[in-house]
Amino acid sequence: MNQTELIKKITSEVMKELDNKHSCSSSSFGSNTIPVGVSVRHIHISQQDLEIMFGKGYQLTKRNELTQPGEFAANEVVVLVGPRLRSITNVRILGPLRSRTQVELALTDAIILGLRPPVRKSGDLDGSESLTLVGPKGSLTLKEGVIRANRHIHMGPEDARRFGVKNDQIVSVEVDGDKALIFKNVQVRVCQGWKLEMHLDTDDANAAGINCGAEGRLIKE
Amino acid sequence: MNQTELIKKITSEVMKELDNKHSCSSSSFGSNTIPVGVSVRHIHISQQDLEIMFGKGYQLTKRNELTQPGEFAANEVVVLVGPRLRSITNVRILGPLRSRTQVELALTDAIILGLRPPVRKSGDLDGSESLTLVGPKGSLTLKEGVIRANRHIHMGPEDARRFGVKNDQIVSVEVDGDKALIFKNVQVRVCQGWKLEMHLDTDDANAAGINCGAEGRLIKE
Repeated sequence: MNQTELIKKITSEVMKELDNKHSCSSSSFGSNTIPVGVSVRHIHISQQDLEIMFGKGYQLTKRNELTQPGEFAANEVVVLVGPRLRSITNVRILGPLRSRTQVELALTDAIILGLRPPVRKSGDLDGSESLTLVGPKGSLTLKEGVIRANRHIHMGPEDARRFGVKNDQIVSVEVDGDKALIFKNVQVRVCQGWKLEMHLDTDDANAAGINCGAEGRLIKE
Repeated sequence: MNQTELIKKITSEVMKELDNKHSCSSSSFGSNTIPVGVSVRHIHISQQDLEIMFGKGYQLTKRNELTQPGEFAANEVVVLVGPRLRSITNVRILGPLRSRTQVELALTDAIILGLRPPVRKSGDLDGSESLTLVGPKGSLTLKEGVIRANRHIHMGPEDARRFGVKNDQIVSVEVDGDKALIFKNVQVRVCQGWKLEMHLDTDDANAAGINCGAEGRLIKE
C-alpha cells in the first residue's frame, strides 16, 4: 500500500466509525448501512399445490423463523426437475402460504436445470419460466412461476425516512472486500413492521464473496 | 418507466451510441468498452503433475484456441475432490504448461468442494487452498494452488494508452442490464500482443446475468 492508498484507507475507516457513532438508527448499523441476507433457491407455495405434492389437507410445519415477522422456513422440501431432466433436490418451502406458487432461483441454479427465468419482483409471475416440482405424494408442472428475484431491500417506514427513500425506489448498494461490488437496480420495499435487510441471491452473494450478516452501503442513484 | 427515468435511459443510450461512433479504438468496441470473457473453473498444470495424472511423457492436446495468443483449452479434463469427499468432474486443463499447477474456482464451486480459496492474482499461490486432482492414470494432492482468480483485464500497450491506465492499476467496470453491477477491484494486466478482454468467474458473470461477448465500461477509480 502506498501513502496515498494508506491515507485513503484510514480516512475511509475513520468515516465509517464516525458514521456508526452518529447513527440515528434504532438498529446497531450505521446511517447508510444495510444488513445483507442471502436467499438460497426456495419456493413459496399455494395450499392447492402443497396438497398436490404432500397430500390432501397437508399443513406446512415451521423449521425456523426468518428475519421478516411471520415468515418462516418450513421443514418441507421438494425436488425441481427441469426440461433437460436434470434435478435439484432439497429445495426448501418458505411460509406462510401464498395465492400462487413461486420458485426463486439464482442463474447458476437455472443453468443446471436448463432454464432462463426472468429477473422479476416477487409476485410478478406472468410469462415467467415453467418447471416441474416433485413432493412425496405427487408432482405438478408449473406453466409459469419461476423467476430470478430482483435485488431488494426490506425496510419499515422509519428506515425509509432515515434513508430518504420511497417504496419501489431503485437504489445501489456497495459492498467492500476483495471482490467489492456496487449492486445496481436494487428495489426499495417499504412495509410497516419490516426489518431492514437487503436480499441477494447466491450468485450475487458469491460474486461479492459475502454471507448473511455482511453489510452494504446504500447509494441513491 | 416515468418521464425522468425515460429521459435518463434515452440520454444513456445516445451517449453510448456517440461513444461507439467516435471510438478511436482499432477494435469494434467503444472507447471505454471492454469485451467480457467468462472463465469457467479450470486448471493450469505443470508437466510433472500432468505426467502423474496422465502417464509418463504425456503431452496436452489442443481442443480449441482461446482469445489470448498461444493459450488453448485442452481435450484433457480432471476430477477435483475436496476435503468433504465431494467432487466436481470434467474440469478442463488450459495450456500451455506452467511451472506450477493452479486451480481456478468460483466461490460456488469452492463451497461445493468445501474450500475457501483466497482471491489472488494468477501465479500468486503461496498459502492458497489444498485439493486432490484425479486423472485417468493417477492422482495428486496439491498442498496449495487453489485460488479464486481476481477480476482482471488483459490488454496490449496500445489499449493501455487509449484508456490511460498502467499495468497492475485497479479499475472498476460497469455492466448494464436487469442485474447491472459495477465490478470493483479489477486489475489491469498489460502485455504486448494481448487482446482486450476482461476475465470474470462464473459467479460474477451469473450475478450480472451476462455471458461471453457481453460488454463492460471501464471506470477509473
